[in-house]
Amino acid sequence: MNQISGGVCAAKGFTAAGVHCGVKAGSSPDKNDLALILSEKECAAAATYTMNRVKAAPLYVTMDHLENGVAWGVVANSGNANACCPQSHENAEAMSASAAAATGREPGDFVVASTGVIGQTINISAIQAGLPQAAAALSADGSDAAAHAIMTTDTVKKEIAVSLTIGGKEVRLGAIAKGSGMIHPNMGTMLAFVTTDCAITHEMLSDALHEVVARTFNRVTVDGDTSTNDMCVVLANGMAGNSLIEWKDQDYETFLAALEEVCRHLSRAIAGDGEGASKLVTCKMHGARSEESAERLAKAVVGSSLVKAAMFGADANWGRVLCAMGYSKAPFRPEHVDVSFCSQAGSILVCKQGDGVDFDEDKAKTILTEKEVIIDVDLHEGDESAECWGCDLTYDYVKINGDYRT
Amino acid sequence: MNQISGGVCAAKGFTAAGVHCGVKAGSSPDKNDLALILSEKECAAAATYTMNRVKAAPLYVTMDHLENGVAWGVVANSGNANACCPQSHENAEAMSASAAAATGREPGDFVVASTGVIGQTINISAIQAGLPQAAAALSADGSDAAAHAIMTTDTVKKEIAVSLTIGGKEVRLGAIAKGSGMIHPNMGTMLAFVTTDCAITHEMLSDALHEVVARTFNRVTVDGDTSTNDMCVVLANGMAGNSLIEWKDQDYETFLAALEEVCRHLSRAIAGDGEGASKLVTCKMHGARSEESAERLAKAVVGSSLVKAAMFGADANWGRVLCAMGYSKAPFRPEHVDVSFCSQAGSILVCKQGDGVDFDEDKAKTILTEKEVIIDVDLHEGDESAECWGCDLTYDYVKINGDYRT
Repeated sequence: MNQISGGVCAAKGFTAAGVHCGVKAGSSPDKNDLALILSEKECAAAATYTMNRVKAAPLYVTMDHLENGVAWGVVANSGNANACCPQSHENAEAMSASAAAATGREPGDFVVASTGVIGQTINISAIQAGLPQAAAALSADGSDAAAHAIMTTDTVKKEIAVSLTIGGKEVRLGAIAKGSGMIHPNMGTMLAFVTTDCAITHEMLSDALHEVVARTFNRVTVDGDTSTNDMCVVLANGMAGNSLIEWKDQDYETFLAALEEVCRHLSRAIAGDGEGASKLVTCKMHGARSEESAERLAKAVVGSSLVKAAMFGADANWGRVLCAMGYSKAPFRPEHVDVSFCSQAGSILVCKQGDGVDFDEDKAKTILTEKEVIIDVDLHEGDESAECWGCDLTYDYVKINGDYRT
Repeated sequence: MNQISGGVCAAKGFTAAGVHCGVKAGSSPDKNDLALILSEKECAAAATYTMNRVKAAPLYVTMDHLENGVAWGVVANSGNANACCPQSHENAEAMSASAAAATGREPGDFVVASTGVIGQTINISAIQAGLPQAAAALSADGSDAAAHAIMTTDTVKKEIAVSLTIGGKEVRLGAIAKGSGMIHPNMGTMLAFVTTDCAITHEMLSDALHEVVARTFNRVTVDGDTSTNDMCVVLANGMAGNSLIEWKDQDYETFLAALEEVCRHLSRAIAGDGEGASKLVTCKMHGARSEESAERLAKAVVGSSLVKAAMFGADANWGRVLCAMGYSKAPFRPEHVDVSFCSQAGSILVCKQGDGVDFDEDKAKTILTEKEVIIDVDLHEGDESAECWGCDLTYDYVKINGDYRT
């Protein structure tokens, strides 16, 4: 498997575009806010959605459109979540109708997604006016513009593509995503759009997506807030010409590994670019009796406000790591636990068998000052493990969220 | 029921003291760090403890000492949690032994509690040297000094006392508590010590405490982190002379209401003085099908980092309220929900039946700028309700916790 360029347009037959249409009043004309992705052939389509009981209208519209298991493209905007307004549902339908009119397709062919503030009526006229422009801009070079169009408080675009061989044919997968705040995905994530030219049935695609999302996006937390708009969609148009994947055979496993690589890359990117974050914090939980406990423990560690604040201060406060594990509701024996902090600058053991050990505070500070830090925990109870991703809690998180809406 | 002065010494037969003994190296001699509370008669004693799987040694020692349902006093320190160190258990035992030696009692007569940093060996010699001094300082005026001695990052002391009549006799309840960070109590709270001269059996006292803690301390969250050291203890020495409460009769109900008032006062004080907090945020959830759902929904709202940051910015971002309710896992119908923001400055409806309504942003800002704000939610589904308390998320929370240990 190789990383390649091209993002969501890397796979055969996909084009994309991102334009500015002015969803948010007063937004800069340089900020793209409307993204379009289109396949030249029908795609098998699978999606996961937020488990939040309050779901934004575009999710319901997308669920409806994907009921037949196929789609042709994606229309998405930033600047407004299109959630909790009297006209939200009609406006989500209007978005797909406009995308269809601009591309010569049917409204039901589109996945519809929105991200931004909740509870303010979306400027649908701006989107309707922008879609013909977006359709005209569709190109095989459009992934970058589309990736920028779905960003809100993100500081870097999230994009990746890989190439691999399945049944002697080159298959490509590409994706874009956005993250930043309200990030604690549960069965979906912010917005992530994956395209592939792999030939795979809707059923296999859906199984692969659910398996992968559980091990990638659902292991990210920025602030413990599960958004109303989370959605991860994969479109597979079959143009790679591999023989159709319709069983969980070797080809399926190869595709699954590639999809996991793509989603893992985006998950780490989302965590590292969490709102206000200055560093990516990974918790690796080893030696667990089950993967489920390992995940629960690791997620409690990266989700703890106190651990996150300590990571911001590069403070080797391992007591907070143990404390977070303790309230995670997963079973473990505190008296068996070893904790180390690691980064490019080295590794240091700070807790052995549940008790503190003497360690070099200066070395610990140096290790924790890196842009990527790992909290490595060995439970000494079994062979299972899990890895979860988060970020530090900074002044900027408070600043961004103290006055996001106005 | 009347509020009275005297804190933990308000009830007959209780004395208290707080002194500086230097638990934390380099701490100011003006900062008390060792508290002692003593009754002149044996007390029925009940306690609740943290549900964190990692429990500090003093909790295990206290559980052991309270197995017989009686105690005579409390010894507590701030500056070190006495948790996760090889000698933690021995040191907690040593603390009660020193308290006993200094007061002429037995080690098993004492509740032992610690609060502060986890994983650093406690300076037990300082405590051993300080206890005779604390015993000598015991007085009926000592509640204030004791309340100060258990403070860590708290900015105000938490103390209350009430007087009421049970069976024609005046009964008094007093309490001190500490809160601030790592506050998300589950079956206990930080440190809260309640004393009363009420005559009540251990069994009735324990039932009352558990019932009240579930509705008070367990409805507070500052940062979602459940501490390893949470403990709430009530000591009842019977010196009021009321006829012993041994059934759930009218006298029990009267005592229960007083205990709830005391614990509610401390809970609100802990929330409002959360680490870095600039305001107390209360979520009142009405019209629920069950008290359990109402509590879960309200706790999700006051626990949301995004809601907390919005409250800091006095931003009427009600979408985050609905979003937090949505991921709480409690059942409700988003399309029935009304949300208002209230404070001394007035009240404003911002969401009706799940959709935004036009509202005066300036008025909302004025309301949310107060020191106490209420997020009032009506679910329109039933008659049950619950109230939870939290605080805003501020720059100071990050500052305090980015470098608390060093």
